[in-house]
Amino acid sequence: MIVTIVGIGLIGGSMAINLKENGFADTIIGVDKNQEHIDKAYRRCLIDEDALLEEAVAKSDLIILATPMDVIVQLLPGVLDLVSTQVVMEVGSTKVAVMEAVKNHPNRGNFVATHPMAGTEFSGPEAAVPNLFNNKCTVLCEIENSNEKPVELVQKLYASLRMQIVYLDAIEHDVHTAYVSHISHISSFALALTVLEKERDEKRIFELASGGFSSTVRLAKSSPEMWIPIFKQNRDNVLDVLDEHINTLSKFRSLLIKKDFDEFYKLIEKSNQIRKILNR
Amino acid sequence: MIVTIVGIGLIGGSMAINLKENGFADTIIGVDKNQEHIDKAYRRCLIDEDALLEEAVAKSDLIILATPMDVIVQLLPGVLDLVSTQVVMEVGSTKVAVMEAVKNHPNRGNFVATHPMAGTEFSGPEAAVPNLFNNKCTVLCEIENSNEKPVELVQKLYASLRMQIVYLDAIEHDVHTAYVSHISHISSFALALTVLEKERDEKRIFELASGGFSSTVRLAKSSPEMWIPIFKQNRDNVLDVLDEHINTLSKFRSLLIKKDFDEFYKLIEKSNQIRKILNR
Repeated sequence: MIVTIVGIGLIGGSMAINLKENGFADTIIGVDKNQEHIDKAYRRCLIDEDALLEEAVAKSDLIILATPMDVIVQLLPGVLDLVSTQVVMEVGSTKVAVMEAVKNHPNRGNFVATHPMAGTEFSGPEAAVPNLFNNKCTVLCEIENSNEKPVELVQKLYASLRMQIVYLDAIEHDVHTAYVSHISHISSFALALTVLEKERDEKRIFELASGGFSSTVRLAKSSPEMWIPIFKQNRDNVLDVLDEHINTLSKFRSLLIKKDFDEFYKLIEKSNQIRKILNR
Repeated sequence: MIVTIVGIGLIGGSMAINLKENGFADTIIGVDKNQEHIDKAYRRCLIDEDALLEEAVAKSDLIILATPMDVIVQLLPGVLDLVSTQVVMEVGSTKVAVMEAVKNHPNRGNFVATHPMAGTEFSGPEAAVPNLFNNKCTVLCEIENSNEKPVELVQKLYASLRMQIVYLDAIEHDVHTAYVSHISHISSFALALTVLEKERDEKRIFELASGGFSSTVRLAKSSPEMWIPIFKQNRDNVLDVLDEHINTLSKFRSLLIKKDFDEFYKLIEKSNQIRKILNR
């Protein structure tokens, strides 16, 4: 099978490595408007050839859109214009805007919306790694609007990556990812800024930063190119969860002010229940 | 050398493993008011014998207090009452309250206040691990108030654990740890609560939780027994940093409301500078 990957970054590049390695793809064609990414992708043997989008679509059986979210939404209708039997999938982090972009497209059935819940705080072809997807979950969204064969192909692809498939509609997806992914990023960005602000006076404090600190701010390394389009498209959900998060922090603040450490203790105990989820 | 460790938990137990393994200690005496901890410590071969506090102090060359912070402050003056040539050190997470507790003690010179910046989200003797301290930083506080020999012994101990020593006064220490440790814990506790609250309606969302989420909420597994005394003793600094953190999150909130994604982009870029610290 010939697979085109549009956007050879962390996700696209990692798909390239793994789909070639596990035999799902015979040939990987890379499409990326950034020539440096194409050069790096060749150097790391992520792609077999590169092409412009139109040519790549014509040659391929499957086209995977793995660019930042705004570019996915912008490219998708044009890519669907070009296909006949080809299957098109995207791997972005929001879904409502994607569904809106294709809802009346005559080739809607060739398209499958997906979201592999895997990633790191790094980006670009240099961030591509083997086994990024192993044993993680992926979302398939509103497959009732896709044709049967494209859905089967995408299921086969994710099975080859050893991912477990969860089926959601676009609205559910966007709410859930706001909770389990997007808010974590905002929390890390904010924590990094809070501490960096302090660092201006006190260079030494980072000598003391331990594993716990690194863990909570790790995601603050994530690129704005990727995240701004996500926050734009999922703004209302993110705002809602951010409000709740600020309220929870304000509750802690209020308990500190009142020195109500009994209630504080209970809240920590309650938050400890996250164990049962993280150790799942 | 005979070393008594009071509080055989994550830190005390890990010290026991490593000080015995590297030859610094010939005998480890465990003191813990929780008999279950003592039993576990024997089963895991963390200690050679156990004793009541008074007896253990009489037999030892070095006494390490590794209980929760409130118990350290409460026990410390009584332990200093018992010593003649013995050295006493503590390994807790705040310092101002400790210094206050011993400032006029006739045996103040025998005491060294320290804070090894190492840990995990787990607690109890079962959490003790080898090499917890390797290549991390430890703080020694206000050594000018300790006698020379006790300071040298404690320096030798931390060298044996391959820790780098940073010297701070108690006030500095408590401000810095509020920034690089305590706020990370509050942020994780709050994030866990925010998401757990949502889970009541929607069991499925955790299927989607990926590595990023786990990383930012990992510390929410931490025990309230350990953390409430820290927040009590470092309340004013924690409140100050928490205010700043809520302000930063509110700035993100305001930018989302105004759809000012250009400014949002700049803030993410700024927070990306945390790379230079985390990759140190």
